[in-house]
Amino acid sequence: MADEIDEKLLEQVKKQGEIVRKLKAAKANNFQDSTTSNLEAHLENINHDFADVSYVCGWVPTMKDTIFFDFCVTFVNDRLFKWPHLKRWFTNIQNFDRIERNTFPDPEGSITPLMRKVDHISNLRLSDRNIIDRKIAEEVTKLLELKAQLGEKNGEAPSKLLLKTPKGTRDYGPEQMALRLTVLDKIIAVFKKHGAETIDTPIFERKEVLTGKYGEDSKLIYDLKDQGGEILSLRYDLTVPFARYLAMGKISSIKRYHIAKVYRRDNPSTTRGRYREFYQCDFDIAGQYDPMIPDAECIRIISEALQSLDVGPYTIRLNHRLLLDGIFAACGVPSNKFRAVCSAIDKLDKNSWSEVKKEIIEEKGLDESSTDKIGIYVSRFGGIELISELRKDSELMKYESATKGLESMELLYKYCNILQVTDKVTFDLSLARGLDYYTGVIFEAILIGDDVGVGSVAGGGRYDNLVGMFDSKHKSIPCVGLSLGVERIFNVLETKLNKEGVKTRTTEVEVFVATAQKNLHEERMKLLSILWDAGVKAEQSYKRNVKLLAQLQYCEESGIPLAIIIGEGELARGEVTLRDVVSRTEISIPRAHLIEEIRKRL
Amino acid sequence: MADEIDEKLLEQVKKQGEIVRKLKAAKANNFQDSTTSNLEAHLENINHDFADVSYVCGWVPTMKDTIFFDFCVTFVNDRLFKWPHLKRWFTNIQNFDRIERNTFPDPEGSITPLMRKVDHISNLRLSDRNIIDRKIAEEVTKLLELKAQLGEKNGEAPSKLLLKTPKGTRDYGPEQMALRLTVLDKIIAVFKKHGAETIDTPIFERKEVLTGKYGEDSKLIYDLKDQGGEILSLRYDLTVPFARYLAMGKISSIKRYHIAKVYRRDNPSTTRGRYREFYQCDFDIAGQYDPMIPDAECIRIISEALQSLDVGPYTIRLNHRLLLDGIFAACGVPSNKFRAVCSAIDKLDKNSWSEVKKEIIEEKGLDESSTDKIGIYVSRFGGIELISELRKDSELMKYESATKGLESMELLYKYCNILQVTDKVTFDLSLARGLDYYTGVIFEAILIGDDVGVGSVAGGGRYDNLVGMFDSKHKSIPCVGLSLGVERIFNVLETKLNKEGVKTRTTEVEVFVATAQKNLHEERMKLLSILWDAGVKAEQSYKRNVKLLAQLQYCEESGIPLAIIIGEGELARGEVTLRDVVSRTEISIPRAHLIEEIRKRL
Repeated sequence: MADEIDEKLLEQVKKQGEIVRKLKAAKANNFQDSTTSNLEAHLENINHDFADVSYVCGWVPTMKDTIFFDFCVTFVNDRLFKWPHLKRWFTNIQNFDRIERNTFPDPEGSITPLMRKVDHISNLRLSDRNIIDRKIAEEVTKLLELKAQLGEKNGEAPSKLLLKTPKGTRDYGPEQMALRLTVLDKIIAVFKKHGAETIDTPIFERKEVLTGKYGEDSKLIYDLKDQGGEILSLRYDLTVPFARYLAMGKISSIKRYHIAKVYRRDNPSTTRGRYREFYQCDFDIAGQYDPMIPDAECIRIISEALQSLDVGPYTIRLNHRLLLDGIFAACGVPSNKFRAVCSAIDKLDKNSWSEVKKEIIEEKGLDESSTDKIGIYVSRFGGIELISELRKDSELMKYESATKGLESMELLYKYCNILQVTDKVTFDLSLARGLDYYTGVIFEAILIGDDVGVGSVAGGGRYDNLVGMFDSKHKSIPCVGLSLGVERIFNVLETKLNKEGVKTRTTEVEVFVATAQKNLHEERMKLLSILWDAGVKAEQSYKRNVKLLAQLQYCEESGIPLAIIIGEGELARGEVTLRDVVSRTEISIPRAHLIEEIRKRL
Repeated sequence: MADEIDEKLLEQVKKQGEIVRKLKAAKANNFQDSTTSNLEAHLENINHDFADVSYVCGWVPTMKDTIFFDFCVTFVNDRLFKWPHLKRWFTNIQNFDRIERNTFPDPEGSITPLMRKVDHISNLRLSDRNIIDRKIAEEVTKLLELKAQLGEKNGEAPSKLLLKTPKGTRDYGPEQMALRLTVLDKIIAVFKKHGAETIDTPIFERKEVLTGKYGEDSKLIYDLKDQGGEILSLRYDLTVPFARYLAMGKISSIKRYHIAKVYRRDNPSTTRGRYREFYQCDFDIAGQYDPMIPDAECIRIISEALQSLDVGPYTIRLNHRLLLDGIFAACGVPSNKFRAVCSAIDKLDKNSWSEVKKEIIEEKGLDESSTDKIGIYVSRFGGIELISELRKDSELMKYESATKGLESMELLYKYCNILQVTDKVTFDLSLARGLDYYTGVIFEAILIGDDVGVGSVAGGGRYDNLVGMFDSKHKSIPCVGLSLGVERIFNVLETKLNKEGVKTRTTEVEVFVATAQKNLHEERMKLLSILWDAGVKAEQSYKRNVKLLAQLQYCEESGIPLAIIIGEGELARGEVTLRDVVSRTEISIPRAHLIEEIRKRL
């Protein structure tokens, strides 16, 4: 059976190879390469433009991207490393599979200047032989994918195009990591300022731990293969494992942060550059405490974190699940449909009311008049005055959950005032939060400056019953917590740095040890040993003989502040030459004073 | 079909429940609880003893553990949190499933004092009704596991006993994390001192990326379920993803560290407390460089890291794959069996030569005389003098790989001398390293002080061909790297701290804000807001009203250095009371000088 499939595949591969060969031969007959150097200049130019593109700020790839992608696969692929921003774009498009790429929308009227440039490049090669080149690109892609399938079946080493990370994931190179670690350090500093401890849990959980916690999103959970043991799934967030941790350890109070990766089988084509593996960055307060005191601190923490990250102006939208329940009841929603309506309302940040209305009526089965009533409520937002306005709504005030929700909101506003974050919050009735487990206040921070459209950069709320779901006696621990959307924050900051042309240092090397003549590598190593012993961050070239100029250029490129140069003269005199890399000034110092002199300059 | 299984299970559960009920009724008839308070004292005592137990230092659980575990499940389970070291032991035993626990060996003659205590406790309850209690414990376990299976099938909330992390994994609480982060920070400091950047890769890879890289160990790879996309596996180490990263990005040189979790479906019962999810901590140098210069730096880095972690005396064993190949050839091993023999030799750190010999002859199919020759070679170790001794072996010197290997070792020794680590290394012909991909020098660090038996705490080597396995043209990038066995290091240090009775602080709080009377929580929040604005790490109780004594006790227990106390008097005078927690001295200061005074004292 397996063999049959293999043979069929093999035949397909052969046929496809033949098609590609014929097309290439046909092309070679009338190929003239006058446009090649021209092409490099155009790519350089477009690389520059791509530096400004953020793949989260409402980015939707179009057919233009597909065409240019195919072009790049055929003509640019192995030189992509030359143009880092182009490569970033390429990697993003590569995360879609071929079928998805072929269903990208046609931009029609809305052609941007960048699209025009991309078109121009794609046409550079296509102008006089567009049919044949497009055809080759298409057929090569097909061939590679067939080969890939064959390789996968036989467990062979992957062919060239298959060398990629799993769909929806990516590697982080040194520059991205340097930025990420800077961001995370700032966030951790805020969490520590508020007295948090940290914990870690396994990347996977027994599947039943995750079951029934995520409502409709459960289908996005990654399962592990049953290899003859437990049934396991990758964690979907950090909150459910946290609740499991509390219940399992019978921990009745803790204030902890947890920064780790989580996994969701989202479809990238529908979620605009979201990844399937991403960091979550959570802070939660568990324990039986007085109303709204920990909740208000969570709001303050979000505000401090966004401030310290310098992401620009933001607002923290607030709402309360009890109030929403009251509103739904007042609009005539049966209580068993609260959560379903809630998850539809949650989409208002991405979809229009008319789309959400359609979903509520058609998918959740609510009648139109109730839905319209909800529509009026969820369009309301403002400040603390909204509380007194809603109190005048006698229909709504009939429901205890509404009055309780408003009371809580009032207390929250009072504490926000004391903690000086009132100017950072908005009371917004359209905020619903998708997850099932929230029971009280909910919040979500969004950027309101240039980066509007990025979506939420933080969110959270109170979930008093989640821990109880893990306890055999349903004894629960009240919890409130927040999650910072660090992936979006990384992207916002990355785009900003790219725009400003700032280069991030990826190492912390303080001193580079260079030699001016050949065969002095052992002398470099002797010096390095002394520097390392003294705790100085230092490196050398791992080649025995390198030109001095190359060594000094490396220092300038990597931002290393100091270089030590030794030659035969220095060795004879028991000295070294110490060079300030930026000013290019050099002085001689006796070896005995070297460490002291370096410490003085750092 | 599924329903049938369910029904059978349900029936089994019912029957089992009946058995348990009957046994408990029988027991109730002659139950006297005179031993309960006695039991607590014994558990306290044994908890103290368990503080000294390391679950990696050659730890093998015995039947005594099984008996005591069953005892704890029945009589101690919900009070385990009272005895942290006992709980640590419990968690370790819990990682085995019931079948494994029932196959633990009988210690027979070798009864330790701790075992005797454990026996005594187990017998406390068993003395006069041992049959019935043991029986109940056993039957309850069976019942819970049956219920668990049923719950799993139906996707229900887990029953109480099922509340655990997946087999072979564990949570890290705040104290463990504090220790881990301290260790990792020290290691990262060493890596940065040597100029390393850092990268990150996804936790899973396309399965074919991992295929053919791990030899016999491939069966330990975790696969993800095929949910209608790519075939994925969890990463098994950080080296293969690193090679994939280099090939995919066409990166020809990099010096990077990578600290992240990896996954191996090891069987815990055969691997002495090893976990299935654990941190790896890798440093690698990729690039076309001159022989042994990067290799020697790796040895120096291991030495620096172990020194800075203060794990006690260690030695770094060195060997060379080419030399091993030469030895195998000289002993008459056919070249297609080199890797297989290598992986058998690798087990010499755990098994005796006679066991390894048996494996080579019976499983790898080598003849006895060749095997005996190998046995003589691999028993040799020493310093640089071993090189000249081996050069006198004319049979061995016929093989080019042997002479090349010795040349490399000579150069490595020269550089180790320059980098001042010669006293930290041992040339050891029995070092083989299990992985297939090594091509040159290999090394492994072991502790040689009290913690002998911990196993290797660092390892690595040169792997020049791995990257080429990912390149369509087999273009390779030479690499050498090291991996620190941080999990073992954590354990060694944890055991050490436990012995010394050192308590690790889990937060960095500098100031606790306390109130002396009721209903002053808003005043506390006002003060906190000021402290946070000034960057002071500060917290309060989230309860409106707490006794002052309780607040101050909390400060002492958590090691917070300063407390601010406000009461109505202080408020009226515009002052606060600042208390030094350790000395318990207090002074009054005007609110305006508060921050300044705190900064002075921190």
